[in-house]
Amino acid sequence: MAGSTFGDLFRVTTFGESHGKGVGVIIDGVSPGVELNEEDIQKELDRRKPGQSEITTPRKESDTIHILSGIFEGKTTGTPIGLILYNQDQRSGDYSDIKDLFRPGHADFTYLKKYGIRDYRGSGRASGRETAGRVAAGAVAKKVLKQKGIQITAYTYRAGGIQCKSRDLDVIEKNPMRACDMEAAAAMTQLVIRLAEEGDSVGGIVECVVSGVTPGIGEPVFNKLDAELAKAMLSIGAVKGIEFGAGFAAADMKGSEHNDPMNSRGFIRNNAGGIIGGISTGEDIIFRIAVKPTSSINKTQQTVDINNREKPIRTEGRHDPCICPRIIPVVESMAAIVLLDLYKKQEAMGV
Amino acid sequence: MAGSTFGDLFRVTTFGESHGKGVGVIIDGVSPGVELNEEDIQKELDRRKPGQSEITTPRKESDTIHILSGIFEGKTTGTPIGLILYNQDQRSGDYSDIKDLFRPGHADFTYLKKYGIRDYRGSGRASGRETAGRVAAGAVAKKVLKQKGIQITAYTYRAGGIQCKSRDLDVIEKNPMRACDMEAAAAMTQLVIRLAEEGDSVGGIVECVVSGVTPGIGEPVFNKLDAELAKAMLSIGAVKGIEFGAGFAAADMKGSEHNDPMNSRGFIRNNAGGIIGGISTGEDIIFRIAVKPTSSINKTQQTVDINNREKPIRTEGRHDPCICPRIIPVVESMAAIVLLDLYKKQEAMGV
Amino acid sequence: MAGSTFGDLFRVTTFGESHGKGVGVIIDGVSPGVELNEEDIQKELDRRKPGQSEITTPRKESDTIHILSGIFEGKTTGTPIGLILYNQDQRSGDYSDIKDLFRPGHADFTYLKKYGIRDYRGSGRASGRETAGRVAAGAVAKKVLKQKGIQITAYTYRAGGIQCKSRDLDVIEKNPMRACDMEAAAAMTQLVIRLAEEGDSVGGIVECVVSGVTPGIGEPVFNKLDAELAKAMLSIGAVKGIEFGAGFAAADMKGSEHNDPMNSRGFIRNNAGGIIGGISTGEDIIFRIAVKPTSSINKTQQTVDINNREKPIRTEGRHDPCICPRIIPVVESMAAIVLLDLYKKQEAMGV
Amino acid sequence: MAGSTFGDLFRVTTFGESHGKGVGVIIDGVSPGVELNEEDIQKELDRRKPGQSEITTPRKESDTIHILSGIFEGKTTGTPIGLILYNQDQRSGDYSDIKDLFRPGHADFTYLKKYGIRDYRGSGRASGRETAGRVAAGAVAKKVLKQKGIQITAYTYRAGGIQCKSRDLDVIEKNPMRACDMEAAAAMTQLVIRLAEEGDSVGGIVECVVSGVTPGIGEPVFNKLDAELAKAMLSIGAVKGIEFGAGFAAADMKGSEHNDPMNSRGFIRNNAGGIIGGISTGEDIIFRIAVKPTSSINKTQQTVDINNREKPIRTEGRHDPCICPRIIPVVESMAAIVLLDLYKKQEAMGV
Repeated sequence: MAGSTFGDLFRVTTFGESHGKGVGVIIDGVSPGVELNEEDIQKELDRRKPGQSEITTPRKESDTIHILSGIFEGKTTGTPIGLILYNQDQRSGDYSDIKDLFRPGHADFTYLKKYGIRDYRGSGRASGRETAGRVAAGAVAKKVLKQKGIQITAYTYRAGGIQCKSRDLDVIEKNPMRACDMEAAAAMTQLVIRLAEEGDSVGGIVECVVSGVTPGIGEPVFNKLDAELAKAMLSIGAVKGIEFGAGFAAADMKGSEHNDPMNSRGFIRNNAGGIIGGISTGEDIIFRIAVKPTSSINKTQQTVDINNREKPIRTEGRHDPCICPRIIPVVESMAAIVLLDLYKKQEAMGV
Repeated sequence: MAGSTFGDLFRVTTFGESHGKGVGVIIDGVSPGVELNEEDIQKELDRRKPGQSEITTPRKESDTIHILSGIFEGKTTGTPIGLILYNQDQRSGDYSDIKDLFRPGHADFTYLKKYGIRDYRGSGRASGRETAGRVAAGAVAKKVLKQKGIQITAYTYRAGGIQCKSRDLDVIEKNPMRACDMEAAAAMTQLVIRLAEEGDSVGGIVECVVSGVTPGIGEPVFNKLDAELAKAMLSIGAVKGIEFGAGFAAADMKGSEHNDPMNSRGFIRNNAGGIIGGISTGEDIIFRIAVKPTSSINKTQQTVDINNREKPIRTEGRHDPCICPRIIPVVESMAAIVLLDLYKKQEAMGV
Repeated sequence: MAGSTFGDLFRVTTFGESHGKGVGVIIDGVSPGVELNEEDIQKELDRRKPGQSEITTPRKESDTIHILSGIFEGKTTGTPIGLILYNQDQRSGDYSDIKDLFRPGHADFTYLKKYGIRDYRGSGRASGRETAGRVAAGAVAKKVLKQKGIQITAYTYRAGGIQCKSRDLDVIEKNPMRACDMEAAAAMTQLVIRLAEEGDSVGGIVECVVSGVTPGIGEPVFNKLDAELAKAMLSIGAVKGIEFGAGFAAADMKGSEHNDPMNSRGFIRNNAGGIIGGISTGEDIIFRIAVKPTSSINKTQQTVDINNREKPIRTEGRHDPCICPRIIPVVESMAAIVLLDLYKKQEAMGV
Repeated sequence: MAGSTFGDLFRVTTFGESHGKGVGVIIDGVSPGVELNEEDIQKELDRRKPGQSEITTPRKESDTIHILSGIFEGKTTGTPIGLILYNQDQRSGDYSDIKDLFRPGHADFTYLKKYGIRDYRGSGRASGRETAGRVAAGAVAKKVLKQKGIQITAYTYRAGGIQCKSRDLDVIEKNPMRACDMEAAAAMTQLVIRLAEEGDSVGGIVECVVSGVTPGIGEPVFNKLDAELAKAMLSIGAVKGIEFGAGFAAADMKGSEHNDPMNSRGFIRNNAGGIIGGISTGEDIIFRIAVKPTSSINKTQQTVDINNREKPIRTEGRHDPCICPRIIPVVESMAAIVLLDLYKKQEAMGV
C-alpha cells in the first residue's frame, strides 16, 4: 500500500535504485517444497538485461541474482525469498549536468513534486532497473504456474507502425524485437536501428497470451482478473494502455458480433479475451499493452530546471530505442504474479 | 481482497444482488465533519438509474438511497457510512427459462465454474445494479474532492463507430448519450434506437477528464495513479480496455513526438495524460475506456446449458442498447474513489 | 485498515451506531454452498442480547437479524453476506444532559479528540452494540469451523475476585454468569447483584478454549495465530489484556518447567496454550482475557465537559453490572473469525 | 498478509534466517527528507545483539547494518529502505544431531506441520535473529517519532519472581537486566547467573511506557491502538501475554475504582493505560508483556523425532538464560512501528 508491494497471498516487495547498492525483491507466500535455484531466475533476468542485441542499450549492468533467504537444500521453505542484484559502476558524477533539469517524459518533475527530494542518478527508483526485481519474482511464479500447465508468452505485436501479420510464438526468441512474425521483425529492427541513429526512439504494442488457466480464476467484483492484470501492467513504467480480447475494437461492434457463443465443445470465438465477469473462461487470456517510446532520446528538447528556468536538454549516452523487447519478460512476470495470487485466492475460497 | 472491497484509506465495500433485498455499500475512511445528506448521493444515482431517456431500459428499479449509519446531525462522523437501495419487484419466476442456460457475454458460465453455485436471477452479483453502491460511494468522494477544486467529468466519446468531433463538456447532460458533441450525439442516438429495434446493441468509448489534481499524487511503484485507475475501470463489468493520454497511439509515435516538453508556464502538451512515472503532473488527467456492447440482446444466439447440451437462447425484455450513458457516473465514481484514497496516502507520507 | 474491517480472506466489515438506523456487518469470503439461515445467526445473537437474565440490563434492544444479501435458496453463494439489525426506540432526547460531558471510562473524550465531532447518543460507534455485527459474522464462521470439527467455547473464569475451581463446560449456559463452575457462578451472581444495587460494576476474566484445530495454523512471523487472536480480543471494547497458556505465570517459571515435552502420544502438557512459534500445535488453544468493569455506573464521578469545566456526572439507567456474560459470544466470534481466516491462508499456501 | 509484513502506511517486511546469507528488512512509507545513517540504526541493534553482558549468550553474531536502498545524500527519499545484516560463521554441521528432533518450546514441530519442510539450522525463520530486522525498522520509526516528542521506553519489570520496587528509567541501561530498579536488578542478575549454571532459564515481565502521544491516535473499531500493540507484541516469539494499564488486575476491580476521573488538569489516574475506546488519551501508554523462559536449556528433556520415536534431548551451547534484556529493543521497536503507522492514518483521516 505504501507502493512497493504487489499481491496479497503471493506477495512481492521490491526495493532499490539504479545507482544505489542494488535492486532486489522479497517474495512472500511461495509454497514450500518448490525446487528453486539461481539458474531458474537468472535465465529470465537475462531476457531483461541490457546489451542482449544490437537494438538494446550496451550499458553495462550487473544482472547476477543472489538468493538471500528462503531456500534450504535447494527447495523453498515457505518463508520469504530474498533476492538481490548488486549494482556496479554507479558513477554518480555522470549525472551532475542533468541533476537540476526535468527530463521530458521522465518522472523527474513528478518525483520532486511528490517527495520534495529526488535521487537524480539514473531515475533512482523510477528507473527501468527496478523491474529486475519483478522479473526475479515472476520467474518464481512462472515456475509454480508451469507445474499447473499454465504458459505465459508475451511478444512485440507492433512497433513504430509495423504490425505482425502472423502470430508464430516459435520465432519470438529468434529475433531481437521478440516479435511474433519474422518478416515484421526484420522491418521493425531496421526502423529501430535507423531511429537510434537519429537519436530518437519509438513505441509499440506488446501482446500477451496466457494458456492453460482453468475457468473460475478471478475475484469479483473489484479484484477481477482483468482489473488485477490492468493494474499490474499499468504499474510498469512505460505502459500507457491495456485492452483485453477485442478491446477497443469492441467500441464499434454490435452485441451480436461481440458476444462469444458456445457449443458443446466450448466457446466458438474469444472476443472476451478469456475473461468474462472478471473470471477466467478457460479460453486463452489475451491482452495487449501500449508501450510508449523510450523517453531518453539523443535530441535537444525543451525543458525547465528546478528553478523553473527554461533550458534545452539533450540526453547523451545510449538507450534502448524501443522498450518492447526488454519489457516482455516484465509483462510475463507481472501476469504470472497476478495469476498465482488469484489461484491462491480461489483455493482459499473453498475453505 | 476477498473481492468486494476497494481502496485502503478511503475504503468502499459493496454488497447485494439485483434480485435480493437490495444493493448497498459501506464507506470507511470519510473525514469527519463533511456535510452530507441523501440528496448529495441521490443526484448521482439518478444519473445511473434506468428509464432516464428513450435509450435506457424502461425497467423499473428503485434507486432511492437510504443512509444507515455514519451521519450525525447532517455531518459525517468519521465512522463507516452505510448506504442501501432496497430492491423492488424482484420476481424470481421470470428467470426460470434461462436459469440453466449460459447467456453469451454474461458471467453465467464463469460464476458457475468459480462457485459451483449461481444466483441466476438477473445476473445476481454480476448485475450492473451492483454499481449503484459504487456511485453512492463516488458521490461522497466527489463531494470531498470538489472542495479541493477537483472536477471529474466523463462522457461518451465514440459509439458504434461514430466519434465526437469536439469536446464540449457543457452539452454532456443535454443529450441522452452523454456525448461531448451534440451532432455526434444525435447520430449516435439514432443508431442506438435503430439497433434496439433490431434487438441488437453497440459498444463505445468513454473518455474521462480529471482537472485540478495537484502534482505529486500516486504511489510508485505498484500503486501508480494510472495503475490504480486502470484497476478501478477494469473492475466495471463492461469495460475491456483503458488508455491514458496518447494511449495506444503512442505505439506509433517517436520519443521526440511523445515526450511532453516544458517551459516556464508548465507542460507544453499532454501526451502523458497527466501522469508520469505513476504520479500526477498537475495537467488534466485524461483516459479513455473501451465499453463492450450490451450482452443482453433480443436475437437468437447459440449456447449450451449446464449439462453442456446445445440450446438456442434469446433474451426477451428491454435492455440498454448502449451502456455508455449509464456507465458514465460509474466511471466518475471509481475515479473519485481512487483519487481520494491516493490523496490520503500522499498526506500520510509526510508524517 | 480504515478501522472497521477485520480479516483478509474471511473479511468482516461492521457498520452502524447504537442510535442510528441499525448496526450490521458485511461478510466477504464465505465459501459457497454453506447452508445458512437467520436462525443460525439469531441463536448466537440471543446469547449477546440484553435482558437475558437478572444480571443483564433490561434495556430493550431489537436484536432481530435480517439477511440482506449473499444467500440464495438457503445457501451461501460466495458473494458478500450483508446482515443488519435495525435499531428501535432510539430516543436521542435522553442524552441531552450528558452530551457535553466526558463519561469516565467511556470513549467520549478520545472520540472527540480524534474526530473533532462526536455522536453522543449512547456511545455512537463505540457502543457495545457494535459487537452484534461481530457476533453475526462469528456465527457464520463458527458454522463453517464446526464442520471441520472445531469447537470454540468461552466462559467466565473469574469475576470480582471469585475464581472458578473447576472447568465444567456443560454448566456454562446454565448460569447467568456463563461461568464454568456452578458454585463460583452462584457467588459471582450474588456479588454482581449486590454491586448493581450499589450502582457499581465489576470486572472479570473470560477464558476461551478452542479444540480441534489441526497443527500448522498461523502465519509467521507477524501474523502469528496468537498475534491475530490478541488483536481480535483487544479490539473488543472492554478487554484490557490477554494471555495464552501459562501466560503471565510464565514470568516466574523456569524453562524446564515451561517447555512442553513430547512423547509418542503428543505433548505431555500445554503451557504453550496450543500455540508455538505462532502456529497451532494441535493441542487445545487456551487464552484468557481481562475484562474491565462496566464503565457506566450509577455513582457520582468527577469529570469535565467539552469546555474543560469540572462537573460531577452520574449515569442513570440500568447497565450490565458485569460485562463477562455478554462478552462471551463476542470472544467466541472473534476467535472464529481469526481461525477461519488463517485456515484459508494455510490452504492458499499450498498452491 | 503472507506473514512477513507488518503495518500499512509505515510498512515493514522482514526476511532471512539465522543460518542463511543474512537477515534484513524493507521499510516502505518513510517520509522523505529524514536524516538517517547506519549509526542511527546500529546503536539500537547493539542493544539487541548477543554478548553484551555476562548474562547474554556469548554467541558470535554479526550485527553490522548495511543500507541497501532508500537513502540519498544522507536523507530518506520516500522510497523503500532496504537494510541487511549478513550472517557469519553459519556452520550447518552443528545441527546434525538435532535436525530430526523437536526441541521442546521451539517451533520445530509446528513449522514442520505447517510447511512439510523445515530449515533446522538454528530455528531458521523462527530464530530470535529475525527480530534484528524489526529493531532496524524500529530505529527508523523511533527517530521520526522522537521529532514529534514521543519517547518509548521498555524495561524488565519482573524476572524469575523478583519484581522491581521502583520505576527509575535512568538506571535501565546501567544494569545487564535492563531493569528499572538497581536493587531488583542485582537480585535478578544473580538468579539468572545461577540458573544459567544449572543449564536452566527463566521468564519475566517487560513493561513499556510511551510518553508524548497526542490524544486521538488509534483506529476504531478493529484497528484500536491497543489491538495493534497487542498484535505487534504477540508477534514476538517469546511473548505469551499483554496487559494495558491496570490490566488483569481490572478483573477484581469495581467500576468506581477502575474508571479514570477527570478534572480540568486532565485525567486523575491512568488505569486505562493511556488508551480508551482504542484511542490514545494523551496520558502515558503503559503495557506489560509476559516473556516466557528461554526454550533452549542445557537439561535433558523428553521429546520425539520426526518419526515419532521418543528421544531425550539436551541443547548444548550457550543461550540467554533470560530473554528480557534483549527483547527490550524489540518491544520498543514494534511499539514505534505501530505508533508511526497509526499517526499516518490519523493524518490521512483528515483529508
